[in-house]
Amino acid sequence: MQAWKKNIRKVVPYVPGEQPQRKVIKLNTNENPYPPAPGVKMALEEFNEDCLRLYPDPDCMKLRTVLADYYKVTPDNVFVGVGSDDVLSVAFMTFFNSDKPILFPDITYSFYSVWADVYRIPYEKIPVGEDFKITASDYYKENGGVIFANPNAPTAIYENLEFVEEIVKNNQDVIVIVDEAYIDFGGESAISLTEKYDNLLVVQTFSKSRSMAGTRIGFAIGNPELIKAMNDVKFSINSYTMNQNSLYIGGEAVKDDAYFKETVSKIVNTREKTMLRLKEMGFEGTDSKTNFLFVKHNAMRASEIFEKLKEKDIFVRYFKTAGIDNYLRITIGTDEEMEMLIKALEEIMNF
Amino acid sequence: MQAWKKNIRKVVPYVPGEQPQRKVIKLNTNENPYPPAPGVKMALEEFNEDCLRLYPDPDCMKLRTVLADYYKVTPDNVFVGVGSDDVLSVAFMTFFNSDKPILFPDITYSFYSVWADVYRIPYEKIPVGEDFKITASDYYKENGGVIFANPNAPTAIYENLEFVEEIVKNNQDVIVIVDEAYIDFGGESAISLTEKYDNLLVVQTFSKSRSMAGTRIGFAIGNPELIKAMNDVKFSINSYTMNQNSLYIGGEAVKDDAYFKETVSKIVNTREKTMLRLKEMGFEGTDSKTNFLFVKHNAMRASEIFEKLKEKDIFVRYFKTAGIDNYLRITIGTDEEMEMLIKALEEIMNF
Repeated sequence: MQAWKKNIRKVVPYVPGEQPQRKVIKLNTNENPYPPAPGVKMALEEFNEDCLRLYPDPDCMKLRTVLADYYKVTPDNVFVGVGSDDVLSVAFMTFFNSDKPILFPDITYSFYSVWADVYRIPYEKIPVGEDFKITASDYYKENGGVIFANPNAPTAIYENLEFVEEIVKNNQDVIVIVDEAYIDFGGESAISLTEKYDNLLVVQTFSKSRSMAGTRIGFAIGNPELIKAMNDVKFSINSYTMNQNSLYIGGEAVKDDAYFKETVSKIVNTREKTMLRLKEMGFEGTDSKTNFLFVKHNAMRASEIFEKLKEKDIFVRYFKTAGIDNYLRITIGTDEEMEMLIKALEEIMNF
Repeated sequence: MQAWKKNIRKVVPYVPGEQPQRKVIKLNTNENPYPPAPGVKMALEEFNEDCLRLYPDPDCMKLRTVLADYYKVTPDNVFVGVGSDDVLSVAFMTFFNSDKPILFPDITYSFYSVWADVYRIPYEKIPVGEDFKITASDYYKENGGVIFANPNAPTAIYENLEFVEEIVKNNQDVIVIVDEAYIDFGGESAISLTEKYDNLLVVQTFSKSRSMAGTRIGFAIGNPELIKAMNDVKFSINSYTMNQNSLYIGGEAVKDDAYFKETVSKIVNTREKTMLRLKEMGFEGTDSKTNFLFVKHNAMRASEIFEKLKEKDIFVRYFKTAGIDNYLRITIGTDEEMEMLIKALEEIMNF
């Protein structure tokens, strides 16, 4: 073995859902089935390519101002990054530097342990209940920080604001991160608590409810000291993470609130209809407040349904993870896509 | 002090050049004065915003293939990131995990020590000579890795391929990174050495010679094992760093070689003309093979010239760094911009 190999960082990377380059019914990465707000198309048309020769605004003030206006905070309360993965990664590196373990649920976004590993942060996974629910009091113990997703993924379970506040209130010596990637599909954001608790950071994304997964925008809201600390770390890694085009068009996905509410509401309606149909077919699952369903069927293994759907060019997500390895995570597409899913399931399961 | 503050990562961030949001003569961040290749404009016009709802290809195969074709390697030899800063940051984290210090020149891109600090990598700065030149044999000692920029920045000095090969040849137990951000303005790339030396990684950027600083694309070329290791780390931080738009238009800045050669040649001509004029005015500096000049004048402090140019809305770069704090780094703009710079300098210095 060449000597240089021994200094390569050993990691077990996160594995994203497949991104097939051909046309399939894609219900595997929780993308939005509807296009971005019409203002995004207009901004793209107005975008002048000459600005590409210049570095973008490293402070991303235009986008931060739009977000601050929308969420009724100031730009000093807003950090933006290349999707919420970038935001969370920077937050892990910025805030989780204790010798004590950070805490997160054992069933949750599997990137949390990947970041903890790559940044050498000690962590403890707290088991969720048999109903996949988080118990707030499990997090009332000494720790180096807390992170949880609300709604949680892939379980789709939402806990109310009182629940979130209890965890924050009982952890005021550390940073608590609430990952709200799916909050717009039925939950109430903890952004309203960030003024009261200076140790609370709320992270959201443009990738789900705002139909902008391809633009790579995520953001965090918290007190200005937290945001400054994150910016200091960001400026120690890459001064210009957000490109001119994303910064130019990004705000348009926020400003058009009518379009946003309309598409979110369509997805919620499709979700409820689809869940009813699946239940009629014998599926069971959690009460989703997200843009996906988390379901299983006693008559056929999830892994088998997953493979058989794939043969029909319908991609859903299957995690070979203890505790959830008989569940499927199915993104809510259009009504037509969900009809095709139901039809395929009927064929596969011989109904 | 609240308890959570003690676990915030302490960093001294890199400070990028100013990005004024109003119109100035901007010669401070080594941007290209010419717009991106015409194909970029056409690609932008053809770009369909509906794809923004979908995650980009996490493997960036389309862009890696264009780069592989251009540099006569395979896509397995190519890593792409959000500007060369992202690429270098991932490379530091991936390859510099020894207890021994990594080596780099004391006068160089100041981000190297910032990354080493944030990732807690021990490092040793090797002094350059009084002529700002690197001495290859200074790097023939035990170390945890080597990185140098060629041409170096902000000194603008280029060393030939034999010089680079000597350093690589004498460091085969560690990874050697050659940062070639400015190579296209007069140097010969070390990419040709990557087949011979499996410990060599060459990093380049679209931000200078390709007029795409705003699109945020950088890349590394090296043996497939190095590229895989970098991708493993990238997938442990953020699966989707490159957005749909950058991936769609990026290749167009590479394919149009005639436009590329034409704009680079214009910049080189302007550089040589400008340096002659500056020398006539009593400035002295290095023999630049980049898109900037590194100059000083014995009659006035660089800091003073910097401030007085700024008053005239001409932005150049000044580093308050020991050893170079009487030098200015001046980006090569258009002929017209450089005429205005010369005129302003004549006024400031009372010629």
